[in-house]
Amino acid sequence: MYFHVQQLINPIVQDEPDPAAANALQEGLGGQFGEMRTMIQYLFQSINFRGASAKPYRDLIQGIGTEEISHVELIGTTIARLLDGSPSYSGKKGDPVDEPGAGGAVPLQIALDEGNIHHYLVGAQGALPVDAAGNPWSGSYVYNSGNLVLDLLYNLMLESTGRLQKCRLYEMTANKTARSTISYLIVRDQAHENGYAKALETLGVNWRTALPIPKTNAERFPEVKRLVDLGLQSKQYTFDLTAESEAGRIFQGASPSNDGTDLDASEQAPDGVPSEIAPERPEEFSPGADAELRKLIEAAAALELADIDMTFGALK
Amino acid sequence: MYFHVQQLINPIVQDEPDPAAANALQEGLGGQFGEMRTMIQYLFQSINFRGASAKPYRDLIQGIGTEEISHVELIGTTIARLLDGSPSYSGKKGDPVDEPGAGGAVPLQIALDEGNIHHYLVGAQGALPVDAAGNPWSGSYVYNSGNLVLDLLYNLMLESTGRLQKCRLYEMTANKTARSTISYLIVRDQAHENGYAKALETLGVNWRTALPIPKTNAERFPEVKRLVDLGLQSKQYTFDLTAESEAGRIFQGASPSNDGTDLDASEQAPDGVPSEIAPERPEEFSPGADAELRKLIEAAAALELADIDMTFGALK
Amino acid sequence: MYFHVQQLINPIVQDEPDPAAANALQEGLGGQFGEMRTMIQYLFQSINFRGASAKPYRDLIQGIGTEEISHVELIGTTIARLLDGSPSYSGKKGDPVDEPGAGGAVPLQIALDEGNIHHYLVGAQGALPVDAAGNPWSGSYVYNSGNLVLDLLYNLMLESTGRLQKCRLYEMTANKTARSTISYLIVRDQAHENGYAKALETLGVNWRTALPIPKTNAERFPEVKRLVDLGLQSKQYTFDLTAESEAGRIFQGASPSNDGTDLDASEQAPDGVPSEIAPERPEEFSPGADAELRKLIEAAAALELADIDMTFGALK
Amino acid sequence: MYFHVQQLINPIVQDEPDPAAANALQEGLGGQFGEMRTMIQYLFQSINFRGASAKPYRDLIQGIGTEEISHVELIGTTIARLLDGSPSYSGKKGDPVDEPGAGGAVPLQIALDEGNIHHYLVGAQGALPVDAAGNPWSGSYVYNSGNLVLDLLYNLMLESTGRLQKCRLYEMTANKTARSTISYLIVRDQAHENGYAKALETLGVNWRTALPIPKTNAERFPEVKRLVDLGLQSKQYTFDLTAESEAGRIFQGASPSNDGTDLDASEQAPDGVPSEIAPERPEEFSPGADAELRKLIEAAAALELADIDMTFGALK
Amino acid sequence: MYFHVQQLINPIVQDEPDPAAANALQEGLGGQFGEMRTMIQYLFQSINFRGASAKPYRDLIQGIGTEEISHVELIGTTIARLLDGSPSYSGKKGDPVDEPGAGGAVPLQIALDEGNIHHYLVGAQGALPVDAAGNPWSGSYVYNSGNLVLDLLYNLMLESTGRLQKCRLYEMTANKTARSTISYLIVRDQAHENGYAKALETLGVNWRTALPIPKTNAERFPEVKRLVDLGLQSKQYTFDLTAESEAGRIFQGASPSNDGTDLDASEQAPDGVPSEIAPERPEEFSPGADAELRKLIEAAAALELADIDMTFGALK
Amino acid sequence: MYFHVQQLINPIVQDEPDPAAANALQEGLGGQFGEMRTMIQYLFQSINFRGASAKPYRDLIQGIGTEEISHVELIGTTIARLLDGSPSYSGKKGDPVDEPGAGGAVPLQIALDEGNIHHYLVGAQGALPVDAAGNPWSGSYVYNSGNLVLDLLYNLMLESTGRLQKCRLYEMTANKTARSTISYLIVRDQAHENGYAKALETLGVNWRTALPIPKTNAERFPEVKRLVDLGLQSKQYTFDLTAESEAGRIFQGASPSNDGTDLDASEQAPDGVPSEIAPERPEEFSPGADAELRKLIEAAAALELADIDMTFGALK
Repeated sequence: MYFHVQQLINPIVQDEPDPAAANALQEGLGGQFGEMRTMIQYLFQSINFRGASAKPYRDLIQGIGTEEISHVELIGTTIARLLDGSPSYSGKKGDPVDEPGAGGAVPLQIALDEGNIHHYLVGAQGALPVDAAGNPWSGSYVYNSGNLVLDLLYNLMLESTGRLQKCRLYEMTANKTARSTISYLIVRDQAHENGYAKALETLGVNWRTALPIPKTNAERFPEVKRLVDLGLQSKQYTFDLTAESEAGRIFQGASPSNDGTDLDASEQAPDGVPSEIAPERPEEFSPGADAELRKLIEAAAALELADIDMTFGALK
Repeated sequence: MYFHVQQLINPIVQDEPDPAAANALQEGLGGQFGEMRTMIQYLFQSINFRGASAKPYRDLIQGIGTEEISHVELIGTTIARLLDGSPSYSGKKGDPVDEPGAGGAVPLQIALDEGNIHHYLVGAQGALPVDAAGNPWSGSYVYNSGNLVLDLLYNLMLESTGRLQKCRLYEMTANKTARSTISYLIVRDQAHENGYAKALETLGVNWRTALPIPKTNAERFPEVKRLVDLGLQSKQYTFDLTAESEAGRIFQGASPSNDGTDLDASEQAPDGVPSEIAPERPEEFSPGADAELRKLIEAAAALELADIDMTFGALK
Repeated sequence: MYFHVQQLINPIVQDEPDPAAANALQEGLGGQFGEMRTMIQYLFQSINFRGASAKPYRDLIQGIGTEEISHVELIGTTIARLLDGSPSYSGKKGDPVDEPGAGGAVPLQIALDEGNIHHYLVGAQGALPVDAAGNPWSGSYVYNSGNLVLDLLYNLMLESTGRLQKCRLYEMTANKTARSTISYLIVRDQAHENGYAKALETLGVNWRTALPIPKTNAERFPEVKRLVDLGLQSKQYTFDLTAESEAGRIFQGASPSNDGTDLDASEQAPDGVPSEIAPERPEEFSPGADAELRKLIEAAAALELADIDMTFGALK
Repeated sequence: MYFHVQQLINPIVQDEPDPAAANALQEGLGGQFGEMRTMIQYLFQSINFRGASAKPYRDLIQGIGTEEISHVELIGTTIARLLDGSPSYSGKKGDPVDEPGAGGAVPLQIALDEGNIHHYLVGAQGALPVDAAGNPWSGSYVYNSGNLVLDLLYNLMLESTGRLQKCRLYEMTANKTARSTISYLIVRDQAHENGYAKALETLGVNWRTALPIPKTNAERFPEVKRLVDLGLQSKQYTFDLTAESEAGRIFQGASPSNDGTDLDASEQAPDGVPSEIAPERPEEFSPGADAELRKLIEAAAALELADIDMTFGALK
Repeated sequence: MYFHVQQLINPIVQDEPDPAAANALQEGLGGQFGEMRTMIQYLFQSINFRGASAKPYRDLIQGIGTEEISHVELIGTTIARLLDGSPSYSGKKGDPVDEPGAGGAVPLQIALDEGNIHHYLVGAQGALPVDAAGNPWSGSYVYNSGNLVLDLLYNLMLESTGRLQKCRLYEMTANKTARSTISYLIVRDQAHENGYAKALETLGVNWRTALPIPKTNAERFPEVKRLVDLGLQSKQYTFDLTAESEAGRIFQGASPSNDGTDLDASEQAPDGVPSEIAPERPEEFSPGADAELRKLIEAAAALELADIDMTFGALK
Repeated sequence: MYFHVQQLINPIVQDEPDPAAANALQEGLGGQFGEMRTMIQYLFQSINFRGASAKPYRDLIQGIGTEEISHVELIGTTIARLLDGSPSYSGKKGDPVDEPGAGGAVPLQIALDEGNIHHYLVGAQGALPVDAAGNPWSGSYVYNSGNLVLDLLYNLMLESTGRLQKCRLYEMTANKTARSTISYLIVRDQAHENGYAKALETLGVNWRTALPIPKTNAERFPEVKRLVDLGLQSKQYTFDLTAESEAGRIFQGASPSNDGTDLDASEQAPDGVPSEIAPERPEEFSPGADAELRKLIEAAAALELADIDMTFGALK
């Protein structure tokens, strides 16, 4: 069973809207090696896992999989922020906020020039479940052979490829909003790669000097370096509410990446940051309330809220 | 940010394996109107939501969306149980457990006769992210127009269609494992339908006698009746760890389905049941450990587990 | 602009329901060489046609394209009739009409055994826009190069392949409902092939003995022979309301298939047969009316119908 | 059975070619909520409809569905006109009309810069069955649950979403060719929305102030206002040749959109405008006739046209 | 540049037709981890390879890739043989060879009962570019990151998964035609896995006891054991006509699978066996020659054949 | 069985990188009418061919099919060269070769502006198995009805459409690298069209003045004229190592295109040109070797190469 807290797993740095960067980031969200892929793949691997004696491996996959849901939330929100307000950003406005299209204005003209037109036409300047070339995410991406070593090997390759792509993304844009999330995910992909590599180490592989794969030397990117200095590439959280995860049996000892750190699984979750609801965008008719509807919304929001029994059985 | 607890949201009744029923249930997991769809759709709608004054609507969608992750877990596990051991169930065995294919045996012959061959060939008798006709789940299913009324209307239709399909599924199989999950999801879909219908009610629609849509009268199904008698169709949990959800501002008052109950959002989450790891299946090479590998797995599982700091900031 | 008349283009012979045959016929509806393909392809070729001096070629394509809409209607209705009531046909009923699933009955069990489960689960025993292997129809099928000779050559190949597949379909089932529509479409595909072959003849090709392609000798099939004896393979209707079609400039003279007939474009349309609305199916919740809803439907159906001005400008 | 008349359902205003606008309009043609979708969806819903007592609902869907074929024709032609001649429009020509590519000229260079390269490479500056992001139309879009209330609810949502997207399209381009068709379709989508909303009203829903959904206030767009002033949002034609449609039993009374008008189904069809064949484009080899071929085409076009028997049985 | 010789890379054992086994084998041909995948993936990796100093790695990939074309040919032919004549095998004939469908016979009825109906309807009892669940092969399967270590790691995982699936296929059917090709491909996949594992060994990984991945112990299958005893799992051919391949610099030394053998790259290619053309199948209209056409075919086949200059430059 | 030689089938002219042209050429590689399509289609038609008496037709298809593999290699390499180094070409560099992204540089910014972002993000400035609009290649493209005349007719149309699209591509770019390969493929498509047209001629069709289809008069393009003057449009190679091909029985006599030449099948293969490995691109991490890894690669490349037995049985 899953729970939610209204916090983002990492802060997003503020910068100008940038729809081209937003579209590039879609690869990290809905691409074949993006966060939706890892989220769904690890969820299926956890559900279908076989062999009670291998529980620590299941728990490792499940913990990383739970983190990936928060990564989908993080990169989705980042894309939405990069898109939000981009009509005005493009300098082709006509005051979109006030009177969308009134008298024949063209507030959304930017949609024809930048990235994916669906960001403005199908969605309302928000993230989409597609990759940077516009392909919808597909269930055919998910790999779950049921063979433990193969699944771990695939997961290692998946995290490594995700990191490679994010390093390339970093080189495509200097937008700070984009880079803050790209850099965080580079380091977290590295942590997951370390986890799967360590698991394979327990099953007979000696990586010697091979890790990390690939050797992108991402510490050259200042935002990445800051996070590596904090050791985030060697930490794994459980995201487990009742301390039943045994992932820490695997995620310990010297990092297989040979960076001199030890793997550390002693924290339940990172401190998050409060998430915020995006502003209205009249030119997208989102949420699309006229005066009358706004009054109804506000009336509903003013209704009394009953007390909620927070003593969930398993947490008692 | 998301958290997990090693519990299923509802118990699964034990019965014989039944790969044809397993395949039918794939529609409820990976179909256009299945649980993966609702999970991802509500996640995107929550991320891209606009308008702070409409927070209770966002929280309603987000809470239902969090529940859907647990539904994916539940129906995926149900499918896996229906498949597990089906080679032996088919009476065409040759002792699959012991010596898969040794001397030319054909322990997986059932794969050619029933449901989706990928259940045995690509997966290891586990759930797949596809529908009952074998189509992979697609990101193109997700609807998120950004217009509040339209998104709510779509969600209502989505839950109603999901329930319609599950009522048809109920009529396709008498297997108790399948029916226990089908029946639970019928009732929960009804609760979600009530939530979206109530939200539209606050925005100006009067449903009068129209709900539920469709009128399947599923109380004729004994397993459904039991849950309806418990009132599960009128409850919505928050799955929110820090009591910030305002969904209860909407999910209250007389049920729009006119069944005489009041909507109730006063519980954080249902009591779950412990989840279990599935047994090994040698004929699928899953997890695929020979004696040597088994020893390595057991050695890893015996490693010491460090203490985990469970005092997650937001929960303190 | 398009108009409709509540008639089927050809009668459908009555026989037992047969879901396996229904599924096979889906290829003729939603397959790569089925009627949806020809309908959409010719519609696009008509819209995008270039060169006013070549109007007779455009009109030939447009007239055949209009006929294809009626073919979609015909084969779709045939599939629906083959499915309708198949739960009872399978002998696994429990009185589906009366009490779907009441007390735990399994009236739709047949869905797990025959053809495409979506016929019972996603649709309500009706036709789907998919092929016989369950692939959804795709816009990528449509061919419209804009080059006149190439488009005609493709259309010839398309009709020939459609006829080849329908001859194979004929060999797969003895069901009379299926065969009455298969046979009609074999002969109409032949007529369309003759039309495109004749058009290419005017542009320089001499087919000599090559036609028909392929030489399936479908006259061996009794139902086909009856229609060939009526000369339907050498007729083309205009389906044009205002006699502006010039297709007849091409569709005339000796048939390129060398069967001794002359091509004839002197009729606007065949005589149709009245179409009928399918009966209710309670086990599918279709249309899904309980007593109260039925009363509302009947009340609406009893409302007065205003006079309709049938003097459409272009027809005056 | 279907018929055609060589007329467009609405005039298209003349303006400069604009390939970016053409590509945006593809969403309205081949997108998930475009005209191909409504055309095919309503065709399938009509074919598979169950329940003779509900005939007025079937006839409403069928009549709107027939109109959608004409909408496909209209928006397809609009896209073709926006593309036609765009090589010259881009100022990168070299006289495309005369000598395509002779001596190494680059008349189609614009294809690399604007919209969808397939418009110039796969088609010949004509419409394609794809959406604005290049995804081919898919049969998986079609919704036809067979449950009357659900199908009507879906259709309402579909028309509403189509209208929302067209309002966004209006805001993306000031091209008059594009806007004339966009505006017409906004108003017709509104009429269809009113039809489905009224049908649901007869089945128990009271929309009160909720309609139209969404409240885009498109009357701010001058071209839309002109059509609304003519009342086109409250009219529905039957497109039925023999006056058998009973759609008018539903489409009557006060508009559910509360705009003070009454719904009116008393006309068979709007007056159309003659459609025209597009000019040749040598740089696309379309139709691609050299001198010799041109002579053959003209010879064929000069053949005598036999009289056509226009006394179609059902129309007598 | 590529050349062909009219020989199969391995003999196919004769057995009864078996359409269900044929369909299962489609996974090995057109599945995500089948031979089309490896063929195209290695072709792209060879074309896009970077770094002249790493030529032996490119040559290893290119040589294996060339072998995969022959594997596509082998498994495709195997599937075609398993299908060929299956109408008669099913006992539902009516003499298909003689008079397909004459007088209303149903020679292809088996198509409705077994495997993939497209084998009889779209193809003529031949192989299709789809997987065992009917999904068409997709270019989205191809992995080519451009990073050498990642590409090698992926290729290792790909071969391992291919072998896992083929071991499962072996367990699904006892048909000797199917098993002869399955067994050969299991052993060749093992050889390719060894090649990629060795390449990674040169780049820093020590596999210790981890290989082979997975440990399926396929030597339990008698047909596999025979080939392993011949050492085929430790050989790699160059398929290179001019001895420029440097793959042997990598494919040498002790096998990373620790089976006591040494890797051996000293042969250009295995001895093949002559390939044969399949017989005619009248019930499929394939090749579809009536008497007249047959005469034309024979006349063409009797034309004189000019001498061919076999002194290809590079081979001189 | 297939063999390879490390040569390209035609030289590629050197010019500036041009990512927009590279993307356009993807249609010729991975498009519905591109070289992957012909390669795979002819491979399947050869494998599934029926009728030993028609061997010359099989051999014609197989020989052309083998050539298509070399065409995939040629156009893939051309695309890779057009992409290679384009970051620097765009003038937005920061010395990509030396320090990718160091200190926050943006060496890959061009990826957001030109063609397909996947060229830089998923691949490493190399060819992809997709078309010019980014759609992945699909097995559903492959046509293989099994009927000889239909398959030949389809192949003729396929080559003709491929040539039409390449003529349009020629008109889209003046880049010499792109045009050298486009022009070569235009002429080779013409040769293949001649082959299939001749085969249909032997089966009863008289093309008279119809060929070539379409009449693009590509001799107006200087690079094409040069190759036509060499007669390459009337030659077909066997690519057969043991002189068993009988394609020459068909590919002889006057060209069906009536250009005054005779068809000539007397050569085994054209002289190729040596192929070269592309340079490293640090900003793509391809091959991605740091100092340590580079040393390992060089050590492997320095290993001794065993003698290879080049006396392949069938060639002895």
